[in-house]
Amino acid sequence: MAGAVIELGSGSSSSPGQANRGVAVLDFILRVVGIVATLASAIAMGTTNESLPFFTQFIRFRAKYNDLPTFTFFVAANSVVCAYLVLSLALSVSHIMRSGAQKSRVVLIFLDAAMLALLTAAASAAAAIVYLAHKGNIRANWFAICQQFNSFCERISGSLIGSFGGIVVFILLILMSAVTLSRRP
Amino acid sequence: MAGAVIELGSGSSSSPGQANRGVAVLDFILRVVGIVATLASAIAMGTTNESLPFFTQFIRFRAKYNDLPTFTFFVAANSVVCAYLVLSLALSVSHIMRSGAQKSRVVLIFLDAAMLALLTAAASAAAAIVYLAHKGNIRANWFAICQQFNSFCERISGSLIGSFGGIVVFILLILMSAVTLSRRP
Repeated sequence: MAGAVIELGSGSSSSPGQANRGVAVLDFILRVVGIVATLASAIAMGTTNESLPFFTQFIRFRAKYNDLPTFTFFVAANSVVCAYLVLSLALSVSHIMRSGAQKSRVVLIFLDAAMLALLTAAASAAAAIVYLAHKGNIRANWFAICQQFNSFCERISGSLIGSFGGIVVFILLILMSAVTLSRRP
Repeated sequence: MAGAVIELGSGSSSSPGQANRGVAVLDFILRVVGIVATLASAIAMGTTNESLPFFTQFIRFRAKYNDLPTFTFFVAANSVVCAYLVLSLALSVSHIMRSGAQKSRVVLIFLDAAMLALLTAAASAAAAIVYLAHKGNIRANWFAICQQFNSFCERISGSLIGSFGGIVVFILLILMSAVTLSRRP
């Protein structure tokens, strides 16, 4: 009985199988894009280091990313997500081979959702601190440090781009996996 | 033909259908939990307001949540996510009725993933600022404001709990939708 349903499905629809393979290839490409984006973010933030050529009235005259714990978390989270994406390439390749796999797709959706949360947490926490560095906050007496550390601020602002690109990649990956699961192979 | 397949499906598999219905009920309950959690977060943060009984050497002697733009974003994002969850209850109920629905589940997974990203962004950005309010940062000359604003700090710290609960709810919702999609009805 179940066999009849499957035959019906696969007989009438060889194009869904093809389409699933196309989606699997797109999934692979998106994961590679995500690897590049998160790796670039981690490296850009992790190598940030500015020494001012003069001494100010304060003692500090040097800014590094790990002066602020949020940026350390940002580098760590981007590295973890990048490593996860590299490992998930193996599953992605197996989906290109066997387009009917179901359970591994469910596992991927769950892990993708967890990594989406981790990457978003890192990116938006860093963005909150970058905003503070640019604008400061008068009510809390927190001063904008970007007036002194110009290139430091440009670097940390730029390194957010890769992470936010990675967030979009993950939302697309989850959508594509869901579409593939909903189609009967 | 489609009607025949659906009849076949519902006839041959009453136990997967039952299981799907159980998952759909759990989905409904989790959404209600999420509504309560995000609403509590939004209200707890939105009503935060502390006036100090004395004047300090600084001009400020009053702390409100909207002194910091991150907290305004936190309240807005939690309200949006709460409203989305209320609206999604309608789809959730329709899934309890018709356990074989596929397309609406894909739409829900996509929207859930987007809302997961929004809620995580709000919660972790607020957490980054709360951490700064508690600890301050010596290198950036940002002072901990929690020594002056005690109950303000307790309130904003507590209001994060609901949001992080909401994040867990969304990851579970995505997982459950994916499991249901992978089962043939």
